[in-house]
Amino acid sequence: MNTNIQLPPEQYLIDLRREFHAYPEPGWCEYWTTVRIVEELEDIGVDDIHIGPDALDTNERLGVPEERVLSEWFDKAESKTNRTDILERIEGGRTGAVAVVDRGDGPTVGLRVDIDALPIRESTDGDHVPAAECFRSKNEGFMHACGHDAHVAFGLGTLRTVAESEFRGTFKVFFQPSEELLGGGKPMAVGPHVDDVDYLIGTHVGLDHPTGTVISGIDEVLALSRLAITFSGESAHAGVAPNQGSNAVQAFVTAASNVYGIPRHSDGATRVNVGEISSDNPANVIADRATATIEVRGESNDAMEYMRDSVRRYVESAAEMHGCEAEIALVGAGIREDSDEELVELVSEVANGIDSVSSVVRRGSAGASEDVTYLMRVVKANGGNASYIGIGGGNPSGHHTPTFDIDEDCLLIGVSTLSKTVLELLS
Amino acid sequence: MNTNIQLPPEQYLIDLRREFHAYPEPGWCEYWTTVRIVEELEDIGVDDIHIGPDALDTNERLGVPEERVLSEWFDKAESKTNRTDILERIEGGRTGAVAVVDRGDGPTVGLRVDIDALPIRESTDGDHVPAAECFRSKNEGFMHACGHDAHVAFGLGTLRTVAESEFRGTFKVFFQPSEELLGGGKPMAVGPHVDDVDYLIGTHVGLDHPTGTVISGIDEVLALSRLAITFSGESAHAGVAPNQGSNAVQAFVTAASNVYGIPRHSDGATRVNVGEISSDNPANVIADRATATIEVRGESNDAMEYMRDSVRRYVESAAEMHGCEAEIALVGAGIREDSDEELVELVSEVANGIDSVSSVVRRGSAGASEDVTYLMRVVKANGGNASYIGIGGGNPSGHHTPTFDIDEDCLLIGVSTLSKTVLELLS
Amino acid sequence: MNTNIQLPPEQYLIDLRREFHAYPEPGWCEYWTTVRIVEELEDIGVDDIHIGPDALDTNERLGVPEERVLSEWFDKAESKTNRTDILERIEGGRTGAVAVVDRGDGPTVGLRVDIDALPIRESTDGDHVPAAECFRSKNEGFMHACGHDAHVAFGLGTLRTVAESEFRGTFKVFFQPSEELLGGGKPMAVGPHVDDVDYLIGTHVGLDHPTGTVISGIDEVLALSRLAITFSGESAHAGVAPNQGSNAVQAFVTAASNVYGIPRHSDGATRVNVGEISSDNPANVIADRATATIEVRGESNDAMEYMRDSVRRYVESAAEMHGCEAEIALVGAGIREDSDEELVELVSEVANGIDSVSSVVRRGSAGASEDVTYLMRVVKANGGNASYIGIGGGNPSGHHTPTFDIDEDCLLIGVSTLSKTVLELLS
Amino acid sequence: MNTNIQLPPEQYLIDLRREFHAYPEPGWCEYWTTVRIVEELEDIGVDDIHIGPDALDTNERLGVPEERVLSEWFDKAESKTNRTDILERIEGGRTGAVAVVDRGDGPTVGLRVDIDALPIRESTDGDHVPAAECFRSKNEGFMHACGHDAHVAFGLGTLRTVAESEFRGTFKVFFQPSEELLGGGKPMAVGPHVDDVDYLIGTHVGLDHPTGTVISGIDEVLALSRLAITFSGESAHAGVAPNQGSNAVQAFVTAASNVYGIPRHSDGATRVNVGEISSDNPANVIADRATATIEVRGESNDAMEYMRDSVRRYVESAAEMHGCEAEIALVGAGIREDSDEELVELVSEVANGIDSVSSVVRRGSAGASEDVTYLMRVVKANGGNASYIGIGGGNPSGHHTPTFDIDEDCLLIGVSTLSKTVLELLS
Repeated sequence: MNTNIQLPPEQYLIDLRREFHAYPEPGWCEYWTTVRIVEELEDIGVDDIHIGPDALDTNERLGVPEERVLSEWFDKAESKTNRTDILERIEGGRTGAVAVVDRGDGPTVGLRVDIDALPIRESTDGDHVPAAECFRSKNEGFMHACGHDAHVAFGLGTLRTVAESEFRGTFKVFFQPSEELLGGGKPMAVGPHVDDVDYLIGTHVGLDHPTGTVISGIDEVLALSRLAITFSGESAHAGVAPNQGSNAVQAFVTAASNVYGIPRHSDGATRVNVGEISSDNPANVIADRATATIEVRGESNDAMEYMRDSVRRYVESAAEMHGCEAEIALVGAGIREDSDEELVELVSEVANGIDSVSSVVRRGSAGASEDVTYLMRVVKANGGNASYIGIGGGNPSGHHTPTFDIDEDCLLIGVSTLSKTVLELLS
Repeated sequence: MNTNIQLPPEQYLIDLRREFHAYPEPGWCEYWTTVRIVEELEDIGVDDIHIGPDALDTNERLGVPEERVLSEWFDKAESKTNRTDILERIEGGRTGAVAVVDRGDGPTVGLRVDIDALPIRESTDGDHVPAAECFRSKNEGFMHACGHDAHVAFGLGTLRTVAESEFRGTFKVFFQPSEELLGGGKPMAVGPHVDDVDYLIGTHVGLDHPTGTVISGIDEVLALSRLAITFSGESAHAGVAPNQGSNAVQAFVTAASNVYGIPRHSDGATRVNVGEISSDNPANVIADRATATIEVRGESNDAMEYMRDSVRRYVESAAEMHGCEAEIALVGAGIREDSDEELVELVSEVANGIDSVSSVVRRGSAGASEDVTYLMRVVKANGGNASYIGIGGGNPSGHHTPTFDIDEDCLLIGVSTLSKTVLELLS
Repeated sequence: MNTNIQLPPEQYLIDLRREFHAYPEPGWCEYWTTVRIVEELEDIGVDDIHIGPDALDTNERLGVPEERVLSEWFDKAESKTNRTDILERIEGGRTGAVAVVDRGDGPTVGLRVDIDALPIRESTDGDHVPAAECFRSKNEGFMHACGHDAHVAFGLGTLRTVAESEFRGTFKVFFQPSEELLGGGKPMAVGPHVDDVDYLIGTHVGLDHPTGTVISGIDEVLALSRLAITFSGESAHAGVAPNQGSNAVQAFVTAASNVYGIPRHSDGATRVNVGEISSDNPANVIADRATATIEVRGESNDAMEYMRDSVRRYVESAAEMHGCEAEIALVGAGIREDSDEELVELVSEVANGIDSVSSVVRRGSAGASEDVTYLMRVVKANGGNASYIGIGGGNPSGHHTPTFDIDEDCLLIGVSTLSKTVLELLS
Repeated sequence: MNTNIQLPPEQYLIDLRREFHAYPEPGWCEYWTTVRIVEELEDIGVDDIHIGPDALDTNERLGVPEERVLSEWFDKAESKTNRTDILERIEGGRTGAVAVVDRGDGPTVGLRVDIDALPIRESTDGDHVPAAECFRSKNEGFMHACGHDAHVAFGLGTLRTVAESEFRGTFKVFFQPSEELLGGGKPMAVGPHVDDVDYLIGTHVGLDHPTGTVISGIDEVLALSRLAITFSGESAHAGVAPNQGSNAVQAFVTAASNVYGIPRHSDGATRVNVGEISSDNPANVIADRATATIEVRGESNDAMEYMRDSVRRYVESAAEMHGCEAEIALVGAGIREDSDEELVELVSEVANGIDSVSSVVRRGSAGASEDVTYLMRVVKANGGNASYIGIGGGNPSGHHTPTFDIDEDCLLIGVSTLSKTVLELLS
């Protein structure tokens, strides 16, 4: 195997990761993040940089926040950078980028990293390294609590490594927005840059594996649909004449109490959960509006679709029962695709050849959902190969918690594993 | 006031009441009861006896039991009487009778008494008089636990008294089946004998009032609908593939949990209750069938109809939610009609003139439901007068309980009050 | 009857009402409102002005908003007045005032008016008089949509009238905060100024009665409790391990679906409603927190307490079922007290003697809830008399709607009726 | 491999199967079935026959029917056999038998077959072979709809074959009652005859596999608990005073609507279903009693226990919410144990050597529940080996349906596979 590669200095990766960690932005609001990525791409000197609408199919975006939210983040980004040339192109929740290094004939390899953060307030605890070492989130209430800051560093570090190596073919890095919302995977997948990819690599840090462990292929990503539900009823005075109203809260409560009980599916695990519930009506008024988000998952795409269709029917029936109307909008979606054996085999070999890798797990199970699977599906449908690779990271507390962190030793392991895999494929 | 009337001996009333008490029959199964009433009418010597289909409109019956149940009671009655001439005419749940005493020109007065019993197992306690004095129910599992045995005695006693008096006009007694099911009132009301009634008197014993109290007019009978609900789904193995079924139990549970929460109505009190729930499917099979009875009431007819229509919609929506079908059948119905002041005034005067009456309440509130109101509505619509009269009876425990009993001293008070009122109206 | 009174000019009342209409403040935030009332009281020249903590028992306040909300309204008030001497005394949600005119020996008469507004955005429609005539709410999102602006005018107008008349005894006007939240009635009632009141008059404008109608006594105010509910559970990843969480949304949904079904009560009408529901957790996280407000009412105090205690039990059980904790705080309370015949009779006589009064209704039914009943209860318990008087006001659309308005012709009718009644009592 | 065995004539197996098919008996009521098995064992001439209480630990039985039901089946059996010597020993729901053939030193092999039937009315359709060929169920309403008639034939046929062969060691056949109720497995497992078993073989016919297929080891039997639930409340008149009752139907409905929504478990598939629901109270009475059976399953024993414990807590909380009491009784239980590789390997080899076997599946997945796993657990805990073997049977419609049937060609395949496996182990 070719191991004569020049990895970037570890401090470069740590600095990158900490800078992105300090400025987390939620899905479709990664304005500053996109700008900084592009600046770095310019510094690396890639052949093509596709930004925003040129990087993905913006019509396919799911879960785009309302204009007010987009504007707030745009303004925040504008105050931190003078690259209005880039900002202009991504305004309106059209974030993300694709970098291309083209060395002529040969296969095309794609690496997909996700760049968005979560609406979680980061811990201020002295034991929490980002707090102690002053790179805690400066966007209060938001946090890179799932390691996408490390993913950006993986993407840029791998790109820099590969770009400085000799190879034949094309290498693309997909900086995908809005993974947490499961809103960006499909737009990227059906965008203009995935169709010619022969080998697609997704990656994730942490996953409760310690530093030094590499999972060559993660399977059993749960398929998912996220539905935004609005019940509309009619107000009435709750004391004088409750019968004259149509109670949106009752409709919601009936829907919610029933969706948890959608019959289990023969294909295996399914999931359903209700979140972000809201109705502002004071209790002395029969509520004319109630909203919620309902999320379903399935071990198979069939099971997930069964859950999703059931939720739709349950919600409609609950609305009808209580004389209300229901609106149902899809705001997030993920599918299941498993990793291909060819790539799993290659990654295992590569990882076994890296000194700092102490353990290689051929195949792991995801438990959660992801939308890199949309890119995987396109590549596989075209006859290509795809794998979703885990880089252990020794996080002390679970993903999506206020004290989530990574062990920065994993940054170089990740870049090393990914770069060598890419270069093997392009050798 | 005319008080020169010849009341029957008290022992005659007690004997009658105890005989009927010993052989309780549920709604539309009052075969033996109807036969014995007719025998007594023959003994009294009334002018006309209308039986079964000649007494009421059998097409309007609600809550008629299934054939198997009807047959059992018919067979039981057949074994206790040789009056097959009567039995033949009432077979198939076509019970009930109307007696007419016609003395030519003058007003028509109607007295309605109900004759059915309840599916309650009568107490065997030594303190329970019917048990101690050997006239406890001989139809095990059924009981005159609401005093309709006394009502029959009121009806026959009053008829005997009136028939032996001089008066002008017509006196009719309506021996109505199936009041407990609220199934017989409407058939009697739309039958051929109510239309010409000028004064209609309904009556009830007990009602938590002591012996000696007469309530001249009972109001606020709650309007009622009773709906028999059947959910039909599809079976599936509950372990292998619950998703392949359509769960009738889930549909029922959704309907039931919601109907209790139908919004309260501005017209005042409403009621809803679920009873007789059943699904035979073992738990390892997704249930394809579940049945229940749902009963709604309202202080106004509007409020009741709102409740009934809501139940229908809730049940349909719950079925739809769970992929089931729902059948909804009306099996009992009552309306609200209040007593007319003219009759209330007369009854008060009459009752005040009776020595054994110690207290006269002009108007009382019912709390429960009744279907004499259907007869009252017809009479009132025709310009007549109606009242529903309570005869206190000192029952030691509540109506519809296994130790319900009446104080037999009330029998003569009832007959006296009713006879004198009738004769006043026909004087 | 004494009719030699000097009423204030109608325009004075209209100006007052419009000024208060333009600056609505919600319960416990009536800072500017209290200042302006006190300024007017100073202008009238009453004997005593009790402000905030001197007017009511602040420990008994219910539904006081959080500090952040109180501060915002305080700052807003501070920017509109230089009477920091008054503001200082009412800071921290300690609003309200009591005015006293003391003319020595004689009975004590109290008039209670409420001064708070609602969180409703006032209509901008050209047909809506306050919008057309430029006194629409300047506190966007809040509105005098229940006529308390008119009540303040009634209180000040009546006070001015009475103060300028000759009488014996004492007249007090209670400017009560936070009636809409049912949070201010009890603090005022158990405060230092109600105990010696012999006659207590409450009043309300509108109530779907036209201008010219006076209701001498409103009864059947529904007793009420408002409970703020917080369910606390434990978060978990909704995809990876939902079983590891304790789902606060499920606990809420179970509680809500059941409280609507609390069995109806034999005392008559009851009410229950759920409002202000909220849980911020996104759907991919099992919710660790959900909040709601539950409101119950009853035609009797017993029925309301049954509802309230049931809600407490239901909420606790729902929390337990789902492994959560529940906190339940009482944030609003009202009781039922009916009007006394003596006062109803007097008000009827007075109203019949006023030219502009075209119709006097002796007793009306409230349908909704009120907390003037707490003051009524104290006065009645001390052997005094109380009535709650309605002043018809021709509002074109219902109370608590964005286009609610009053017919300003009713202002003088109200002041006239109230002043004459007070002076009759003090003559 | 030793294939010199003398199989019984096919017609013998068919006759046996048809005889048992015609007289299905439900769990713990297999009186006639046990008698006939013992008669056959006597005919074969085994060394020991342990019957009823000598065969299993009767204290561990779950789901034993009430005395009335047991008596009915006992009487029915008594009328069909004169072997009162056997009947006496199994009266009171103490059915089942263990047969032992002891040939001295050597390993002990156990074969477990289950013998009970289902409460399903068998099809009378002309296409249904048992109907057409006159061995349809003579116990109307009950049916061998899961092939246990074939299992008895497997057991007796294998025993006859083995007993007529030469071998070393001990062969036991466990004729286990009450598998459908998951009530007999544990009593058999903890009884006196399993502890010394070195190799334990369970078997099942059909399972949607065609005749000619053998599944060498069935895994992923779902662990199961079946709970009988009784809610006790307090009656009240549903019209007069519903608030005075404690509604057992509401408690049930709350429990049922919630148990379907017990959060999914991270271990994979779980199941929950509610069956046999019942409340006799008519709808005009607040129900004081409601019963149901709730069944939970899990892909792991942990997941099942989580479901079971959740049901207990949900039921208790639902009772408490509605002021009721809940009784919860375990009436059925199964665990998950997977097949051991050593036996799976042997069975595969054996089956591949049988001409009429066209396909060997090494491992299959069960989907449903079984209680042979209790015997497997004991054997495995003692260091032995166990496997649960499937014999394809070409049933035209699903297990537990009225037209379930087996292809009788599979009888000889089953006996052949089982006998040869046993003799291999004892060679």
